[in-house]
Amino acid sequence: MAISLNLLQLQANPARPKFLKWNPVRPAVYFRAPARSTVVMSQITPSYWATINEDIEDHLRQVIPAKDPPAVFEPLGHFIFSAPRNSAPALCIAACELVGGRRDKAMAAATALQLIHAATYTREYPPLTAREISRAAVVDRIYGANIQLLTGDAIAPIVFEILAGSCDWSESGSERVQHVMVEMARAMGTEGWVGGQFRGLEEEATAEEVSEKTEGGLHACGGACGAILGGGSEEEIEKMRKYGKLVGMVKGLSKNVFGGKENERKREKIEEFKVLAFKVLEGFKGEKVHEIYGFLDFEGL
Amino acid sequence: MAISLNLLQLQANPARPKFLKWNPVRPAVYFRAPARSTVVMSQITPSYWATINEDIEDHLRQVIPAKDPPAVFEPLGHFIFSAPRNSAPALCIAACELVGGRRDKAMAAATALQLIHAATYTREYPPLTAREISRAAVVDRIYGANIQLLTGDAIAPIVFEILAGSCDWSESGSERVQHVMVEMARAMGTEGWVGGQFRGLEEEATAEEVSEKTEGGLHACGGACGAILGGGSEEEIEKMRKYGKLVGMVKGLSKNVFGGKENERKREKIEEFKVLAFKVLEGFKGEKVHEIYGFLDFEGL
Repeated sequence: MAISLNLLQLQANPARPKFLKWNPVRPAVYFRAPARSTVVMSQITPSYWATINEDIEDHLRQVIPAKDPPAVFEPLGHFIFSAPRNSAPALCIAACELVGGRRDKAMAAATALQLIHAATYTREYPPLTAREISRAAVVDRIYGANIQLLTGDAIAPIVFEILAGSCDWSESGSERVQHVMVEMARAMGTEGWVGGQFRGLEEEATAEEVSEKTEGGLHACGGACGAILGGGSEEEIEKMRKYGKLVGMVKGLSKNVFGGKENERKREKIEEFKVLAFKVLEGFKGEKVHEIYGFLDFEGL
Repeated sequence: MAISLNLLQLQANPARPKFLKWNPVRPAVYFRAPARSTVVMSQITPSYWATINEDIEDHLRQVIPAKDPPAVFEPLGHFIFSAPRNSAPALCIAACELVGGRRDKAMAAATALQLIHAATYTREYPPLTAREISRAAVVDRIYGANIQLLTGDAIAPIVFEILAGSCDWSESGSERVQHVMVEMARAMGTEGWVGGQFRGLEEEATAEEVSEKTEGGLHACGGACGAILGGGSEEEIEKMRKYGKLVGMVKGLSKNVFGGKENERKREKIEEFKVLAFKVLEGFKGEKVHEIYGFLDFEGL
């Protein structure tokens, strides 16, 4: 029984946006991705991360449909491409290569991770699901809250459609993709990002607890899935999961560090996690280990 | 690599709700499912549909976790079990049996369909994502809008976690589950329920257009997935998809038919779809065909 994946058939053509026909004002917004310079994650070896992020960006544009009706697909494209780039997808590719896998093996998973981030980012609409009002300034307000929430809901199933269509399921290795699907479902749901959002609604929640489940969970998933798809051993998979979690928490805590006592504590935690993350990489060999260290030298995103 | 599925390990125990420990007021609400009489879908052969719905209900209680933290899993359980039962899951089982498959082959998919319905129902929070304010009266207001929206987001990944864990992926037949995942992703997303919600936000949208994508899409998915998992032929799968779509539209249009000119048109459409649905079943043989006719005799739900 042939599985035809619409998403893959209806590829967006970045050179000539299809939406141009209907609304000449919006395409510039629709296809406005963050400048690539903001996606470079390491100051030491920009070229490695830059090539990974370029490949992910290209793949994302290939699999996201630009089709009718514009009322649905225009906001879908807008929110997917205007969401800030997350570093978990790049870590997924790097983990795959670290354990000896080919980059393309982890590309669908990396794209799926960026979509999970775009979905959660789109849904975190300030008046309802985020505590800080400051976020309101970050989110583009071209569309109403109803369209924004529906679009977030629409992005999530695409994650699994892409994963399900990413391999020939009669071949060996397809059980790896099954494993990745379960990992991704957890990183999205109550044990992952949504769980972190729930925690964030509680008054006594600390930034550490929230970032453990949100950025920590997504990066842990990225590291583990990359190692799974690259054919890593059980030990390598768990090491990459742990490394990802620590890196994700560093990234989560690094947001909004300005000064003050609470921030002093955050800075200490960040340094502590960096040391732990460094230790996790012990035992890995080859030039790729140096590349993956690069994640630790980067505080922003 | 062993796939341990947390959901399956942490089974809810209906006899003694775990939440009783933390909040003695809520468990009655949490475990309040609609009375089974409301789930019986056919007046002609209630026993067939009743057994299907009982099996789905049992399976749903098995796979939905009741665990810590209660701030997350209490609303999760509440919205999943208080959402009205949809008939697409039962159609999925019936389609599987119609093409000669065993009931348990389609049970995970049927459960997943009820979860898709529960997720979309939970997210249709009136002020933002539904046009009719009347829905406000239907939805329980124990939790705030933020919790309700987050919970809806949390239900969706469980759908795919259940499907991914529903078969041994090294065995033949696993490509059927892959096919079902793609079908479900579409029934949820922009081509399905979310697409219908988008359409529903537009002023000129008709009930027919909305129900084609929402109930029509979900029942089409139910019919097709049941036939896929039951080992049906390509022709049988497409027939069940078509039958499901017509039945779903009948169910969608049957909601809120009270009188008036617009409703006169709806009634005509309902009758038209019933005739078409009847014709689609031509060619199927065996006693199960009579059972599946039963869907057409039922106007409510």
